[in-house]
Amino acid sequence: MTGSVRILGIDPGSRHMGYGLIEKNGSRLRYMDASRLSLGSGDFIQRLLHIDGFLSAYIADHQPAAVAIEGIFHQKYADAAIKLGHARGVAICCCARAGLAVFEYAPTDVKQSVTSYGRAEKSQVASMVRMILGVQAQWPADASDALALAICHANRAHTLLPSR
Amino acid sequence: MTGSVRILGIDPGSRHMGYGLIEKNGSRLRYMDASRLSLGSGDFIQRLLHIDGFLSAYIADHQPAAVAIEGIFHQKYADAAIKLGHARGVAICCCARAGLAVFEYAPTDVKQSVTSYGRAEKSQVASMVRMILGVQAQWPADASDALALAICHANRAHTLLPSR
Repeated sequence: MTGSVRILGIDPGSRHMGYGLIEKNGSRLRYMDASRLSLGSGDFIQRLLHIDGFLSAYIADHQPAAVAIEGIFHQKYADAAIKLGHARGVAICCCARAGLAVFEYAPTDVKQSVTSYGRAEKSQVASMVRMILGVQAQWPADASDALALAICHANRAHTLLPSR
Repeated sequence: MTGSVRILGIDPGSRHMGYGLIEKNGSRLRYMDASRLSLGSGDFIQRLLHIDGFLSAYIADHQPAAVAIEGIFHQKYADAAIKLGHARGVAICCCARAGLAVFEYAPTDVKQSVTSYGRAEKSQVASMVRMILGVQAQWPADASDALALAICHANRAHTLLPSR
């Protein structure tokens, strides 16, 4: 009875943003798209606008129902944290404004969900993402991390309604 | 020859956002509006949406040409910094998307510009803001800080074109 639903994973950053899109149909997961958006090293405000403009168009084109994004945990460095915060805030707000349900997952939860081991290396995560989705692609690390987030949400969410 | 131009000052936060609007006509500054938007203590994503929705509507209603916002300097605590970063990122992106020129000023520059003393207390800043604008109002501290930012920009900007 339930149709397919698309889940967007986002790994935000102030210089690059990884994203990955999967489709969940019952217990079946299908790979749709993943890449890394390069925001350049220029004006920071332009980079925020880039995130906002890209995501708005991407959501309109691909119609995901939910977005999975890494939670913020144990940031050590205030300067890096505040830059990441700007990028992440813009990404979250853009998704929420477009009506997507926003879900946050801890890095250990994502690794656990994908590799069954909370301290897995990035390369192990990427290998398992390829295996789970049945795709032999080489993505940039933040793109496979974004796919892992989407898979984590697909595996964990009993419903696709937001937790908030 | 030059007409009047409106400058919006924003003092962003993850629980409250101060804002203040002034109009500059030649060397004359006119007070228009200032207040504090309370974002509540609920869901963080809803608070980001609140900032975005409020600012979009406010900009459409009041048509400022430029926004002055406090620069980020010397954040001590990573957790507070990343929350502020989300709120500030959403505010900046919203203004830039609406076509406003975005200017950042250091707290000491704002105090220097308004009180001629870079280490002035908040109450001194508020007093000078009232004097400069010729208004006997009592604003919340973040609203008078936002007005001070707008005044700083009005005093400093030789043109109202963005620096970027």
